[in-house]
Amino acid sequence: MDTLGGLKRTHYCGSLREANIGEDVVLMGWVQRKRNLGGLIFVDLRDRDGITQIVFDTDISPEAFNKAEKLGSEYVIAVMGKVYERESKNPNMPTGDIEVFAQEIRVLNSAQTPPIYIKDDDDVSEALRLKYRYLDLRKPSMQRNFILRHKVAGIVRNYLSENGFLEIETPVLGKPTPEGARDYLVPSRVNTGKFYALPQSPQLFKQLLMVAGMDRYFQIVKCFRDEDLRADRQPEFTQIDCEMSFVEAEDIMGIMEAMMQKIFKEALGVDIGIPFRRITHKEAMERYGSDKPDLRFGYELTDISDAVKDCGFKVFADAVKGGGSVRGLNISGRAEDFTRKGITKLEDYVKTYGAKGLAWIKWGAEGINSPVAKFLSEDEMKSVLQAMNAKEGDILFFVADKNSVVYNSLGQLRCEIAKNLGLLSKEVYEFAWVTEFPLFEYDEEAGRLVAVHHPFTSPMDEDFDKIETDPGSMRAKAYDMVLNGFELGGGSIRIFQEELQKKMFKLLGFTEEDAQDKFGFFIDAFKYGTPPHGGIAFGLDRIIMLLAGEDNIRQVIAFPKTQNASCPLTEAPSYAEDAQLEELGIKIEIKE
Amino acid sequence: MDTLGGLKRTHYCGSLREANIGEDVVLMGWVQRKRNLGGLIFVDLRDRDGITQIVFDTDISPEAFNKAEKLGSEYVIAVMGKVYERESKNPNMPTGDIEVFAQEIRVLNSAQTPPIYIKDDDDVSEALRLKYRYLDLRKPSMQRNFILRHKVAGIVRNYLSENGFLEIETPVLGKPTPEGARDYLVPSRVNTGKFYALPQSPQLFKQLLMVAGMDRYFQIVKCFRDEDLRADRQPEFTQIDCEMSFVEAEDIMGIMEAMMQKIFKEALGVDIGIPFRRITHKEAMERYGSDKPDLRFGYELTDISDAVKDCGFKVFADAVKGGGSVRGLNISGRAEDFTRKGITKLEDYVKTYGAKGLAWIKWGAEGINSPVAKFLSEDEMKSVLQAMNAKEGDILFFVADKNSVVYNSLGQLRCEIAKNLGLLSKEVYEFAWVTEFPLFEYDEEAGRLVAVHHPFTSPMDEDFDKIETDPGSMRAKAYDMVLNGFELGGGSIRIFQEELQKKMFKLLGFTEEDAQDKFGFFIDAFKYGTPPHGGIAFGLDRIIMLLAGEDNIRQVIAFPKTQNASCPLTEAPSYAEDAQLEELGIKIEIKE
Repeated sequence: MDTLGGLKRTHYCGSLREANIGEDVVLMGWVQRKRNLGGLIFVDLRDRDGITQIVFDTDISPEAFNKAEKLGSEYVIAVMGKVYERESKNPNMPTGDIEVFAQEIRVLNSAQTPPIYIKDDDDVSEALRLKYRYLDLRKPSMQRNFILRHKVAGIVRNYLSENGFLEIETPVLGKPTPEGARDYLVPSRVNTGKFYALPQSPQLFKQLLMVAGMDRYFQIVKCFRDEDLRADRQPEFTQIDCEMSFVEAEDIMGIMEAMMQKIFKEALGVDIGIPFRRITHKEAMERYGSDKPDLRFGYELTDISDAVKDCGFKVFADAVKGGGSVRGLNISGRAEDFTRKGITKLEDYVKTYGAKGLAWIKWGAEGINSPVAKFLSEDEMKSVLQAMNAKEGDILFFVADKNSVVYNSLGQLRCEIAKNLGLLSKEVYEFAWVTEFPLFEYDEEAGRLVAVHHPFTSPMDEDFDKIETDPGSMRAKAYDMVLNGFELGGGSIRIFQEELQKKMFKLLGFTEEDAQDKFGFFIDAFKYGTPPHGGIAFGLDRIIMLLAGEDNIRQVIAFPKTQNASCPLTEAPSYAEDAQLEELGIKIEIKE
Repeated sequence: MDTLGGLKRTHYCGSLREANIGEDVVLMGWVQRKRNLGGLIFVDLRDRDGITQIVFDTDISPEAFNKAEKLGSEYVIAVMGKVYERESKNPNMPTGDIEVFAQEIRVLNSAQTPPIYIKDDDDVSEALRLKYRYLDLRKPSMQRNFILRHKVAGIVRNYLSENGFLEIETPVLGKPTPEGARDYLVPSRVNTGKFYALPQSPQLFKQLLMVAGMDRYFQIVKCFRDEDLRADRQPEFTQIDCEMSFVEAEDIMGIMEAMMQKIFKEALGVDIGIPFRRITHKEAMERYGSDKPDLRFGYELTDISDAVKDCGFKVFADAVKGGGSVRGLNISGRAEDFTRKGITKLEDYVKTYGAKGLAWIKWGAEGINSPVAKFLSEDEMKSVLQAMNAKEGDILFFVADKNSVVYNSLGQLRCEIAKNLGLLSKEVYEFAWVTEFPLFEYDEEAGRLVAVHHPFTSPMDEDFDKIETDPGSMRAKAYDMVLNGFELGGGSIRIFQEELQKKMFKLLGFTEEDAQDKFGFFIDAFKYGTPPHGGIAFGLDRIIMLLAGEDNIRQVIAFPKTQNASCPLTEAPSYAEDAQLEELGIKIEIKE
């Protein structure tokens, strides 16, 4: 006797319809719910596909009825029976028109009472959900997320294949890299004392594949960063990683926005227009205070530095004189939505982004209300209101500081306000490409330039002559795809000339020896005929999160890690055996 | 000015045909060859797709001609020109009917003389090929391998998707496992003193996905084993990993052999028949001396123990009396292909597989020639020949030992002989399923039973009652897919009952505490409604190797490791910085 007792499943639990009435079927799945009613037993049988109502009737099979009486929640059963039309149809269920009267039942496995309910609205703690992830994943909403993820990966792969990309696997056991985030290290047993590193991205390998003439490469690939975790970060995450030869930035953007269009159409049935809006980095910062602007609403930043540079409010005037700026948001027509208490909260909010304070002017029916009014002459107030294009009913918020703080705090504030006002519809998708990023930024701690993207990004041709005189002002052939305030992916045209790549490393503070030691193999490759090339990498987890309408990437990762990089289910990481550490030539030595 | 000088590629280098004559085209690629002939310069321009002949003619563009004169091997160029019919066509090239007369050329990058030739028959050392892998991969044969690999992965994914499998990613940072091969460990920084392990396979996770009701799972996924490397082993390798719920072994075999059929049809255009032959493990060992028999030729093993158990040749008689056996191969009709020297080589060969010697009988035109003849009476010799079904022209080989040695040495010998006789065609594909593997084998070193597949394999229902009395004789619901002497993949129906799984761990020598400590989370999952399930995993690297007709998996891995698990290109593994080791709470301490 086989495990399934000779039965073979004929249908999934979500598939039976009126057309199947009269058929003999075999279903297998989990007992979602059981109830006795009028001498009959009703069981909602659940599998990945849906739920079917099974009816046990002593008139049909006393034996099956008796077995059904003993069923509990989450028992695994196989049922053979006939499909009937339901007397009281359930229009809320795809299978609501039918029910299956059981002739035979096999109890394939029993179940203890599960520690979490298998239903979408169970609001148990995430810790418990992750510990019993195999139960949590039974929830229909979670199953939908993984079906969606599977589908999107398939759309991506087929689209890229059709466009000439080859999926080529690059090594997981790689070489530690000196730039970027912290590597996960893997001690080598054969080469004791040495370490592999898990890839932060396949950047060097994909560029080498272009040197190798592979022309178009992609990979849906796990990447790793040993960084302290934030809500939407995981130690391991999945990238859609792409690289192309003989292309300009516009070619890559064109192919990739069309891919996104296809994903949204095929996975969600949503039409998104292409080409996406192009916004330069400078414009994104000035209008939205962010390099990943949420374009679902307005409330753009306005620079009022000119209007206030000589005004009586010292905070404003000093910021401008010190080389910073004063900028404001006009939350037009919504003055009445902001209470004093609400404004205090917003003030606290911007402080977490480095602002020293939040000035505001509320223009209500009773006139101007503002804590800064007393510092401004009537004319000064007037010119501020004019600069902000304000009218009665508006409320204005201002930050005065150095530019980076002004952008960041106001950029975050406009999103926070939009959220509070309920303007962030998950069904609106506002895409854009942000372009012309700076090539470098100055790292005050390190006292040197660092790459905004990475050291392999090509400068813009127009800025090339600044490389000796003013490298800090150079712009990169780099582009980020953004959606609703999230960065979905970013990429660049790469440096492909040996001399330029060497110069880049020098500008980034590498000595010649150091560059040769860390990246010698890579620079060497440039000697033997490297084609112009560029690429992009997308964060798959985040894309799926947004497609699924989830707020958290752990909802779309089957077995995620917690904030402290551990797995509540398997209890990884765990202790290793001494003998194995000895083989690896390492010893635990924890310094306080 | 953009990098490509405003040019946009219109065609790949393998695509132009007679139909394109008269068109203006832009091609980009590498200079494969340049020659001056009759005042013209001919350049073979190469990309992933093929080669096109470009002609530079001073009459068309003196400027382009002058630039072309300076081109060297592997220079990267873009060429704009017009397609003409060739005067002397080359039927060996897909583009041999045409040539492109260049109007413009851009030299996109120069190249030093490459250290290896970019041609398939270059027989430089593998060490050099791996150091300059980005050049080695430019070879057309290598590019074909990766195009094939990409294609096969796509066929697999689409096939499994169509059959209801979801690709779900499982963690790379997992928990160290006590059974199986040696894990690669990853020290945790956040949980100092603890370690993740890289997965040897996603076995536990895929079973948990079945517990989670995902029904059908697959993943093309990197797996890791820190073992000493043999020719066809790599520290990281790629599996096609599958799991299904509510199925029996035959369901899985049926779906997977149809997948293989599709791969061979779509990737190679080869029809392979299904269903594959089913051979029990017992039969495979007795007939072929191997659990992955090469079925492209006969030369099956014959057990002559009965015929020789009382014979005068002590080696034979003692082997049988000691509980072993005497078995032979009849290489029928090929006696004259074996010289004394060749036979000595074969004797050395079987000794590497543990045989103490190799007896043989050559029945040539002059009669019987055999070193064992003098130990056998005429009758005994006759009954040996009869048992072997021998006739004039045959040569027979025998090994007498305990069964495991007899099987292994003769199993290997029949393949070695077939190879020497030229019987191993790469265009013949003989598939089979080997079934009914033993559940356990006895590990003499450990002094206990170990799992032949893994501890999660279900025993056969027929053998279930031996679990208390004779577990060593139980057979498993396990199956391997074999092709031409290679194991392509293997799997099993899994244990899905908590009690049985606990008993399994006990039989494997785990104390209850130990089992709970290592596998507690997994056994716990069985409490809450685990469906019957089973699966399989295929070695993708090996499958691609066989499809590509290669002898070595490094030919189908873009950046493989060498025998000592290092990468000659990047020089991984390498030393880590002290500060990082300190953060990880580990120290290098190599014992001699």
